[in-house]
Amino acid sequence: MAAKDNVKALVFDVFGTVVDWRGSLIRELTAFGNGRGVQADWARFADDWRSMYQPAMEEVRSGRRAWTILDALHRESLLALLERYGIQGLGPHEIEHLNTIWHRLDPWPDAIDGLLRLKRRYIISTLSNGNTGLLIRMAKRAGLPWDLILGAESAQAYKPLPECYLRNAALLNLDPSEVMLVAAHNDDLAAAAATGYRTAFVVRRSEYGPEQKKDLAANQAWDIVTDSFIGVADAMRCPRR
Amino acid sequence: MAAKDNVKALVFDVFGTVVDWRGSLIRELTAFGNGRGVQADWARFADDWRSMYQPAMEEVRSGRRAWTILDALHRESLLALLERYGIQGLGPHEIEHLNTIWHRLDPWPDAIDGLLRLKRRYIISTLSNGNTGLLIRMAKRAGLPWDLILGAESAQAYKPLPECYLRNAALLNLDPSEVMLVAAHNDDLAAAAATGYRTAFVVRRSEYGPEQKKDLAANQAWDIVTDSFIGVADAMRCPRR
Repeated sequence: MAAKDNVKALVFDVFGTVVDWRGSLIRELTAFGNGRGVQADWARFADDWRSMYQPAMEEVRSGRRAWTILDALHRESLLALLERYGIQGLGPHEIEHLNTIWHRLDPWPDAIDGLLRLKRRYIISTLSNGNTGLLIRMAKRAGLPWDLILGAESAQAYKPLPECYLRNAALLNLDPSEVMLVAAHNDDLAAAAATGYRTAFVVRRSEYGPEQKKDLAANQAWDIVTDSFIGVADAMRCPRR
Repeated sequence: MAAKDNVKALVFDVFGTVVDWRGSLIRELTAFGNGRGVQADWARFADDWRSMYQPAMEEVRSGRRAWTILDALHRESLLALLERYGIQGLGPHEIEHLNTIWHRLDPWPDAIDGLLRLKRRYIISTLSNGNTGLLIRMAKRAGLPWDLILGAESAQAYKPLPECYLRNAALLNLDPSEVMLVAAHNDDLAAAAATGYRTAFVVRRSEYGPEQKKDLAANQAWDIVTDSFIGVADAMRCPRR
């Protein structure tokens, strides 16, 4: 019996693994710029915004800053970026519209089909640093068929802190060995595996655009290595419909 | 514009409102007794078990006892009841089988149809004192189509404490006035309304069996008063399919 035969729940990293944050951001930012008559290198803007994500969370992880949800961290980064890019005069509704682009990210083409197959045999959930309010709106808009949403608040700890994986397994009444993390990021999988989780690596070659350098291959022997959620469903022996 | 026109999410009390805990307990306990050759008044056993629910949570609400999930409280009550009824010699798997009857409760006949209609226009979630692990297993077995599961852990407070309603609205990025609680219990609705929630009362005349005395009628002017989730969906103007 393989280790993965014991799995009862699959939990998914979201940004980059389930949804194409970069393509979605560029598309929405470009449309906003065209409508508002604002010129900018929106691909660079998207990359800059994402690059502020880990440092912002690190303030919280380290304990230097009190618990703060991602919507608030995204907004602070956005305001700083608008200033850096010299984009002025936006009203509160426009700021909110931009900040909630993160609620309107599109899934990779294989995501929903794979999730629907997995859902018939397993509990499927997010395991994301996104806040619940962000993740539920993303799910409703995109049709992501989660059984439940585990956001950053459910453990009140940001990945890759071990508490995040451990508390969320406990919330499911499961041992970590009964939970599989599906992620496009080797570091997330390594942290999960260190707490006893099973692991599925799904390579997403263009998450960071055409110049992507990292996470182009598995750097450890994860339980599953594939390039789509269809591959995860096949490996977990979920029948095609 | 009616107050309910502002609602973005409907959150549901579960035990008694969505599922028929009493009928389900009696059915499973009777089957267990028949299979094991144990005689008891299983209807009374079910009522006794449920009657230990509020006192057990009150120990936690009052702060006399550290945070404890409902699966653990149910188990303590079960062990006490088995002793009181003189039922001896059960093994750990049998105890677990009995305790997880609460994971296998059947919905009222209108519940799923109403939820599916509401889900097309609103976020639908549990708002239950059940723990996440219990609620997700109930949902998977029964086919309850929740968008997310808000269990007792998401606010780490048991209803009717106001923190429970307030923290869960905040988790959804919503003002309390944008959330409607659907419940078969006037006291739950009163506590929610006091924090600003909208309210829908669904009478469940046989939740406590043929002798039911309480919650047979609305005791305040709730935003919606009806006797099924179909009635809630109609009142919220969700089209029939």
